[in-house]
Amino acid sequence: MKDEILRLFSSIQSKHPLVHHITNNVTINDCANVTLAIGGSPVMADAKQEAANMTKLAQSLVLNFGTLGEPSFESMILSGKMANHIEIPVIFDPVGVGATEYRTKRAQELLDQVEVSVVRGNQSEIAALIGEEGSTRGVDAGDIQIDPAKLAIHASQKLGAIIAVTGATDIITDGERMVEIHNGHPMMTKVTGTGCMSTSLIGSFSGCTKHLFAAAVAGTSVMSIAGERAYRFLQKPVGTATFRMKIIDEISLMTGDIWREEVKIIENKCS
Amino acid sequence: MKDEILRLFSSIQSKHPLVHHITNNVTINDCANVTLAIGGSPVMADAKQEAANMTKLAQSLVLNFGTLGEPSFESMILSGKMANHIEIPVIFDPVGVGATEYRTKRAQELLDQVEVSVVRGNQSEIAALIGEEGSTRGVDAGDIQIDPAKLAIHASQKLGAIIAVTGATDIITDGERMVEIHNGHPMMTKVTGTGCMSTSLIGSFSGCTKHLFAAAVAGTSVMSIAGERAYRFLQKPVGTATFRMKIIDEISLMTGDIWREEVKIIENKCS
Amino acid sequence: MKDEILRLFSSIQSKHPLVHHITNNVTINDCANVTLAIGGSPVMADAKQEAANMTKLAQSLVLNFGTLGEPSFESMILSGKMANHIEIPVIFDPVGVGATEYRTKRAQELLDQVEVSVVRGNQSEIAALIGEEGSTRGVDAGDIQIDPAKLAIHASQKLGAIIAVTGATDIITDGERMVEIHNGHPMMTKVTGTGCMSTSLIGSFSGCTKHLFAAAVAGTSVMSIAGERAYRFLQKPVGTATFRMKIIDEISLMTGDIWREEVKIIENKCS
Repeated sequence: MKDEILRLFSSIQSKHPLVHHITNNVTINDCANVTLAIGGSPVMADAKQEAANMTKLAQSLVLNFGTLGEPSFESMILSGKMANHIEIPVIFDPVGVGATEYRTKRAQELLDQVEVSVVRGNQSEIAALIGEEGSTRGVDAGDIQIDPAKLAIHASQKLGAIIAVTGATDIITDGERMVEIHNGHPMMTKVTGTGCMSTSLIGSFSGCTKHLFAAAVAGTSVMSIAGERAYRFLQKPVGTATFRMKIIDEISLMTGDIWREEVKIIENKCS
Repeated sequence: MKDEILRLFSSIQSKHPLVHHITNNVTINDCANVTLAIGGSPVMADAKQEAANMTKLAQSLVLNFGTLGEPSFESMILSGKMANHIEIPVIFDPVGVGATEYRTKRAQELLDQVEVSVVRGNQSEIAALIGEEGSTRGVDAGDIQIDPAKLAIHASQKLGAIIAVTGATDIITDGERMVEIHNGHPMMTKVTGTGCMSTSLIGSFSGCTKHLFAAAVAGTSVMSIAGERAYRFLQKPVGTATFRMKIIDEISLMTGDIWREEVKIIENKCS
Repeated sequence: MKDEILRLFSSIQSKHPLVHHITNNVTINDCANVTLAIGGSPVMADAKQEAANMTKLAQSLVLNFGTLGEPSFESMILSGKMANHIEIPVIFDPVGVGATEYRTKRAQELLDQVEVSVVRGNQSEIAALIGEEGSTRGVDAGDIQIDPAKLAIHASQKLGAIIAVTGATDIITDGERMVEIHNGHPMMTKVTGTGCMSTSLIGSFSGCTKHLFAAAVAGTSVMSIAGERAYRFLQKPVGTATFRMKIIDEISLMTGDIWREEVKIIENKCS
């Protein structure tokens, strides 16, 4: 797994995959900037008149529900179907699913109509996505009593996709293998968009490999390592805006060597 | 007043109120980040299909006219009515009202249909909102010859709401009491969104208390103090982007102790 | 040329032109902040109900195709016609034109219906705009085999507008005169929105002069100089987010004296 991920760091710098995003208005600038920072090339077109045609040019597609609305949902379906047709990976971020019936319903429709390769969310979003009990509060993770590893495996089997459940510990599984990432910093919850950025990083790595499980682990771990390093290197006390900037800096400065030195990863078979 | 506000600093850290925003595309990321910085939890959903349902989960609602359009206006009405129904406060930022007939008309409609608890704007926006002569130039304060204290009192009585008129001196009144805040820095006019961020801070504090006048003073003064401190602590000359980042940092580092030491506040009865 | 531009630096500080933007959701905050940084006053209203009326108050109009959609396109036409009617300059940024048929078609329609004073884009966007062979890849410049100076002159003659082709070397021409700017830094391609910001700077300078060619050179060169200085002054290695912040800082700190000392400009007649 580690060697596969190390190869992705050079691969992304030579291929600069075009990552088509249909995403939210809150963190759209951050998503574009982290995609550039890791070596991808972002494009954010969301008009239904061009969504599928833009996807046709891309190497991966990121669909993010942050500020979901009918026009962007329609474009997500069009782009998602095109992505399936041209066989590029679709990365889905079900932001806020479970908080309102609308989001939950539209997420189901998306999963019915589009084959999704990777889903990244917090515990309550992933739980809501597969109909588990949970409570999404706004767009943040609510209280939930389920074991995140079991949740991830269950979701992966039910959705036929790689699942990344991010939180204090990040869990990534394809239903057979499971990886835990023990990096990150609690202050990351004080910056909007760290989840979205993680998804954009997965999308970026997914655009330059067939090994989507490695891409999901790479994207998730780069985000958590960047957060951990950003906090470590800043003068204390750390303000949240400087922290946010420093996280993106650390993503842009990440190399395979830094990643290998920093990553705290546990690999397992799903039992 | 000061003791009441000091209590809000701990209250917001324990309650993390969910602050539903329907806001503009220019400063939406800043609004989310300052809400997190002060201890709130932001959610920015603006689709009419879920707006009211999202409001149902929230402790306060922020309505901001920055990039007003028909879809978001419709959602503002739905969410505003829901907020009134479940009795959570509505904070209104009439960005650019007076600049175009469209904004002025929609603001009147909003005030007709939704009971608003706090309105924050610059002098010309508040003047336009109550039909006073004034000149809003784009979204910035225009030249206006009216005494801001009299304007605020008049607006408060006419609208039955707490009014915060922000500028070189900030004035907050509920028609009976009046508070002047003598903090801030002129360079704050060189950063987009300082007004919007102030409104989001009022919204955040309003989500954890019944004392909305204290919440309005708290939000307005935290913004002005953060701007003042940000400028003070930075190496000169100060660039506007570093200044913007440092303002949000100072919000995230603000404590009751810092606030008490920094605030320059004058309390009066309205005569 | 240089003297003309030096006069613009004081002119913009005394006039604070109102720059109406109809722009994209990715870089809208950056566009507003650089407009403020250079001395302009940004307003970003894009609802068709008020677009033309907001333009009526402005000194220049910036139309940016970054996240083009039907509602904003309709507003661009309304605002563009109003700008022509009241004789303020229209600055057009054809982001991503050539990437999809939709963008190319809408760009043609805009140019048919609105008289545009300045167009700023990368090589492939400008080539696509005039029907030259080229390949726009997403919103980034694709590979193109045409001489950028010839392209700019051709585009200027065909569109009857000042053309700024930005890249490693920036080229600005009105079909008779040509200016090359040899400033900038390669790392600017790692930050989203440097092109959009350049366009907003051109829009800002265009709002305070009749010499639009000087305004186009001023805006383009300020952006490139700011990028060059930002990189030079930062501790190495430079992270992309700190770099982005520092670029806007350098714009806000730019003076005529700094500009004169830094600018590497070559003036020519078009042959």
